[in-house]
Order: sequence, then C-alpha cells, then structure tokens
Amino acid sequence: MHIILLSGGSGKRLWPLSNDIRSKQFIKIFKTPEGDYESMVQRVYRQIRKADPEASVTIAAPKAQISAIHNQLGQNVGISVEPCRRDTFPAIVLAAAYLHDMQGVGEEEAVVVCPVDPYVEDGYFQALKELGNQARLGEANLVLMGIEPTYPSEKYGYILPTGPEQTSFVSAFKEKPDAKTAAAYIARGALWNGGVFACKVGYLLKHARERFGFADYQRLYESYDSLPKISFDYAVVEKEPKIQVRRFYGAWKDIGTWNTLSEAMEENTVGNAILNDTCRNVHVLNELSVPVVCMGLENVVVSASPEGILVSDKGQSSYLKPIVDRIDQQVMFAEKSWGSYRVLDVGEESLTIKVTLNPGSRMNYHSHSRRDEVWTVVSGEGSAILDGVRREVKPGEVLTMEAGCRHTVIAATELRIIEVQLGREINVSDKQKHPMPEV
Amino acid sequence: MHIILLSGGSGKRLWPLSNDIRSKQFIKIFKTPEGDYESMVQRVYRQIRKADPEASVTIAAPKAQISAIHNQLGQNVGISVEPCRRDTFPAIVLAAAYLHDMQGVGEEEAVVVCPVDPYVEDGYFQALKELGNQARLGEANLVLMGIEPTYPSEKYGYILPTGPEQTSFVSAFKEKPDAKTAAAYIARGALWNGGVFACKVGYLLKHARERFGFADYQRLYESYDSLPKISFDYAVVEKEPKIQVRRFYGAWKDIGTWNTLSEAMEENTVGNAILNDTCRNVHVLNELSVPVVCMGLENVVVSASPEGILVSDKGQSSYLKPIVDRIDQQVMFAEKSWGSYRVLDVGEESLTIKVTLNPGSRMNYHSHSRRDEVWTVVSGEGSAILDGVRREVKPGEVLTMEAGCRHTVIAATELRIIEVQLGREINVSDKQKHPMPEV
Repeated sequence: MHIILLSGGSGKRLWPLSNDIRSKQFIKIFKTPEGDYESMVQRVYRQIRKADPEASVTIAAPKAQISAIHNQLGQNVGISVEPCRRDTFPAIVLAAAYLHDMQGVGEEEAVVVCPVDPYVEDGYFQALKELGNQARLGEANLVLMGIEPTYPSEKYGYILPTGPEQTSFVSAFKEKPDAKTAAAYIARGALWNGGVFACKVGYLLKHARERFGFADYQRLYESYDSLPKISFDYAVVEKEPKIQVRRFYGAWKDIGTWNTLSEAMEENTVGNAILNDTCRNVHVLNELSVPVVCMGLENVVVSASPEGILVSDKGQSSYLKPIVDRIDQQVMFAEKSWGSYRVLDVGEESLTIKVTLNPGSRMNYHSHSRRDEVWTVVSGEGSAILDGVRREVKPGEVLTMEAGCRHTVIAATELRIIEVQLGREINVSDKQKHPMPEV
Repeated sequence: MHIILLSGGSGKRLWPLSNDIRSKQFIKIFKTPEGDYESMVQRVYRQIRKADPEASVTIAAPKAQISAIHNQLGQNVGISVEPCRRDTFPAIVLAAAYLHDMQGVGEEEAVVVCPVDPYVEDGYFQALKELGNQARLGEANLVLMGIEPTYPSEKYGYILPTGPEQTSFVSAFKEKPDAKTAAAYIARGALWNGGVFACKVGYLLKHARERFGFADYQRLYESYDSLPKISFDYAVVEKEPKIQVRRFYGAWKDIGTWNTLSEAMEENTVGNAILNDTCRNVHVLNELSVPVVCMGLENVVVSASPEGILVSDKGQSSYLKPIVDRIDQQVMFAEKSWGSYRVLDVGEESLTIKVTLNPGSRMNYHSHSRRDEVWTVVSGEGSAILDGVRREVKPGEVLTMEAGCRHTVIAATELRIIEVQLGREINVSDKQKHPMPEV
C-alpha cells in the first residue's frame, strides 16, 4: 500500500498545546501499549505499520513540520514538503508526483490519501488497504471511505451511495446539514465523508497536467507558490462522475477540539495534575513541571503549556480558535531539526531560552547581527565552533558570542544549554547562515 | 494609637500565590485608589495611616517575612521578629515588650492588637482607635471588638455582651456553633469575635511575668524557642473576668480562602487573562506572563503562579490546604531583603534562576562549597565583588564563580541577572557568609 498522510497546519483549536509552529498532530498525549506517550502522527504511523508492514508512507507536510516529523517518526519516512500553504489539491498532486518521480511508483498503482490525525481502531487501516485494492481494480476513478454514522452529526459532509452494498457507487454528496436533514440522509443510507480516498497515481497526475500544464515533481515543487489555493473536493471530486464508496463500520474520531481529544484520552490526566474527588469528567494535560490542582469541577478540560493555560467547559472548547487568534505572543516552545528550545524569560532587552540538542545533531553555523549571546552548558557533551575555532564543551562551560560571531554547537550526547540573548532588537529573523568551516 | 499587627505564617489556603515562604498577606491583589495593586498588608497599613497619621505600627512577624515587610512597607515600620513559631500569646507579649523596651511605650498606654489581614472599610480603623481609647480608660482589662453578624456563620466564635450598648461587658464566649445555635446567639445580641482587642501594655507584660517569670524584650527574644505554644485566648482571655466589647457595624471580611478573596476583588481578573462571554462569576489571578483563557465556566477561581496552577469551584476552594500540603516541590519564587528571585529551570545537575536586585541593595558576601555559578547580567548597573576584587557590571557582563569563590553584587539601579547554578548537590543551605571586604 502506498499511503499519503495529509499533515495539516497550525492547530490553534488545541491551544495552548498547539500553536503557530507546533501542530496538534505532534503533541504526545496518547498512551501506547508500552505505557509511553505518543502523538497522533506516531499513533497513526504505528497503526499503519501494524496493518501493513510493507506500506510506503509519505507525509505531505509544510516545511515547518519536517523537524517534528523526523524527530517523531525517524529519518526513513517519506516527506513531500510543501514550500508554502496551497490547500489540498496542490498538496495531493505534489505528493503523487513525489511518489512517481522520486520513489518510482507507477501510474497504474493505487495510492490512499488520508488525514494524519484520525483517532481510530486498528481495523481502520485494514479498510484503507482494501480501499487501495478497490482503486487498483479501476471500476471507478475514485474510491472514498464512507463512515457508518453513529448519530445525525452537523459537523460532517454526507455521501449518498446508490445501494446498501459494502462497496457501491456514489449518487450524491451533501455538505454539513442540520441535524434533522442529517437524520433524513442517514435514513436513506448516507455515510459520513471522512476525507479519505484512494485512486491511481496516474489519475492525480492527469488532473495536475490538465489544470497546471505539468505534473513532474521538480516543476510542481518549484512553482508551488504560484499554484492556486484550491481544494481537492472542488478541483476533482465534485466533477468526477465515476466515484465509488466503501463502507467502514468501526470507531472513528475526528480530533479537532479539546472535547473530542479528551474523549480519546485513556486517562484523565497527562503530566503533573491533582484532581480532588469532587471532580467529574475533568481532563488535564499539563506540560509544565509545576502541578495543576483541580477541585469541584465538572465537564472541564485544563491544559497548560509554556504558551499559556486553558480552562474550558468541554462543550465550549470548540469556540477556542477565534479567542486564541487574538493572542499576539512570542512563540515559547519549538521543535527544531536539532532538538528543541523553550523560552524561560522575556526581558526588555534580553531573552533567556533553554536549548536541548539531540545526540549527534548540530545547529547551522550562523551569526546574529543585532544581538550578543551567552551560552552556559548545563548537561551533556559536545563541541562548539566559534569564529572557526573548535572547542570541546561540557557542563559549566560558558561561551560568549558578540554580534557577528559565527557559531554552532555539535552534540555528542544530549546537550542542554541555557542561552541568554542580549540586544535592543531580539528577533528570530536576525540570523545569518554560513558554510560550516573545516575544523 | 499603638497597634500591633499579627502577621500569620504560611498561607497554603491561597496556593499557588502563597507558599511556605510567601504568605497571603504579601500578594498584591487589591486595586488601590490610584489603580496600582497592593497587598493585604499594604492595604491595612495605608488604611491605618489614613485613620491615624500618628499611629505607631508594629508588625509581629516571623523572621522569614522581614524582607517582604520592608519591601512592601518601607524601612520605618516597626517589626517584632519572632525567632520561631510559638502561637499568639508569646507573639503578643514579645511585641508588647518590644514596644515597652525598644520604643519607650509606657505601661499605662493602650495597645491595639489586630490580625494583619482583615479586608475592611476605612471606618474599621477608626473603631480600632476608639478601642484603644476605651482600653486606656481602664474600666476593663481587655476591650474586644465585636462585629455585628450579618448571618449565622459557623466559621466564627461569638461574644455575648451584657447589654445592647455600643460598649458593654462580656457575659460569655461561644466557640464556632452550628448555624441554628448561631442564630439563637444572634437573637440574644451576640457578636462575631474578629480576634481584635485592646489593653494596656502593662497588662500584657504582667501576664508574661506571671507565666514566664520575666517580661523584658531581650530575654523573651532569646528564650523564645523555649516558650510554650499557647494561644492568647487560652492564656489570657478565657481567664479574665473584666472584659468589655465594643460593637462594630461596618463591612468586615476574613480573607482566608479563594472564595472570600475573590469576593474582595474589584475586578474579575488580575494579570493576563481572557474570559469568554459564557463565563459567570469567574475570577482569575495570573502571575505568569502567558495568558489564562477561560471558557464556559461558572463559580470558578483560577490562579497561576510560578508554583503551580489552581482551578477550583469557589465553594470547594476551602478544602485546598490538605491537597497542597501533599505537594512536595522546590520553592519557585521568593522575596529577599535585596529583591527577589524566580526559578526558571530545574535541571538534573543545574538550576537556572532570575535574580532581581532593588536599586541600592546588595547580597551578603558569600560562597557555596558544592556548586559553581554563572551570572549573566541582563539589565541595570552596579558592581560585583569576586574574591575581594571589585568590578563594574552592566548588561552582557558574564561572571563565573567556581565553588568556594566569595562573591556579592551591589545594585546601583535595579539589576537583573540570569544565574545558572551547576553541581550535583544544589541546595539553598549550601551558603557560607563572609564579612564584606573593603574594596
């Protein structure tokens, strides 16, 4: 099975755990069979591998997510990097071209396209495999997954099949209806549209050629920012007469709000949290080291991270995004290709951060033109290069870099540094990259 | 008027704003007429000054509070320092001896004794003054303040007066009754006991002499840890036949829980907080720089500080103390004589803190035997002394001190330093003080 996982953008609906540069799919909140915590993307990847150890997985993701994907899934996963945001049609055809041109997948082979964040049982991935098999048969140009509705939801689009069979043709699509209309659809055998489909690779490339005039990976990648922002539904599905739908009966959750996320949590708390015995249906996700204490709450979710603190009635949590959109705040935590950083203190003309480098990783060789930096190594070992001079570093080592000083650090073990930035204009964009010197 | 304010100990009932070394009376949560925020102790001190600009105020407080008291009330306030905790009788007679021996207050002069944390209108302090005047008359040995009850509370002790006059003798005391009994007391004219009384200084010294054999300040201070833990009610009030009570009719609040504290807040939020329009009767006190977002909550108080986060139904908040007693955690914020510090990061063999020195203040000249320190100055100016060598410091200055290095810093302006402590055994008790060198 070839599978493309669509990895969406910034997920403010799960603030403060997600933010502009950290999407919800990378937050580690689900308990693994071994008792560790894994993220949505790790859970889905593990489930795919279990259903089909031979599956080739490609993640269609924006540039900003590459570090997080490699940190969480390792170096071997395929990534179709979106140079900028261009909706689902460009993202899907770019990933298809990546499969075809970079991984040698033939035009007659089937590909399954699926969001990266469904919270589902293992059987779902078996169904994806069968979706791919169905697409390869070629009875239809597109094969959708139709999820058997459990209630007349107003949140989903509906697919009307021509008959009650496991696989049938699609007679119509209906956009998010009200509950009464939804119930009428369900009475006529309608299914939820979970945004999952399979088709042949060549079918996607043909559509790219028709709309853009080309379908080769290099050209799609290079001209990506000039492609139109257009959804796959609008560009392809609505115009396609030959579509089949395959029913899926199992549990399926779309984890887009704190309410649905907390339903998927196996335990009521993740992190340092204390609930007294008068709490009912309370979930706490605490990424801070200090405790969260909850008393006498009902149907409430509490989440704390370096970005902020949310306390919300579960039903209300779906209205979070517009509130968080108004918060204009420095990013307080980020994953990078070499590890992560966390802001510890924001001063008027200073910024103190904690930098954690993964073993064997290194920063770019870089300098800043408008700030000085002081590094104090607090744990681990490695070496630093300052203006071309290499030195070993260990806990207690202090490195001072005036503006203009070219510097990097290479971690032998996991390496932690307290970095104090000093200057009148401290800004993430003040960074000049230089070629790594031979020292 | 001579007034002794009893400053109680650690207030875990207002965690996370109060902790083992930071009592509730020092938290700045009340809006001043000028729009700033002031603490309970600042509010009471300001109100006393307004009622009686000539009042001499002495605060009976444990050693750990001296820095906070001077930081908040200035250097001119009198402090009777309790070398250790010994309940109210030793604390009150120590303070009376301090007034008599150190401030030359005569035995015939009256003193008013009052908790440091009542949340009251200005008229209360006028009533205190009259309480002192009444005590000076000498009709009774003790004059209590009786607060006119507004409901049959089960939280307070009751005073039964002999008559309905403004000032009358006390016929009996009743400990916290149930609501029905309380209502019966109130029908008989009973008053709440707010823990406030006035008497002559000599009366307190006489009781000290009778019980301990001495009443001079120096000896009481030096033998304080051998004095019995005994309350003033038990030692004096219960045995005294000649007690008057003076009625007080105004608003009076005992701020001991989050519920009563939030009732006293003029605005629903202090600090960075966003409440959506479905919140009802929600109060937020946020000392962190990141936002607290509340949605769809009712009758809830949220408080966030470097120590932790509390989310509690207001009624439940009175059960907080036993929960917080179980939390065993490093102190994350403290006020010191020279300013304050805040823990930014706790590593396995490192601790990063932000130190803020007040203008003109200095640390002790000290060293540590089991940790190195690295200071990076991030704002302000001053000078540092390292092993007897003085140097000027300004933002960007880095000072490294190996274990054993004697050091201090003297702030010319407000001075902020990021301090990284490094070592296997980082402990506040690892501190050796040395005489300040002449450099």
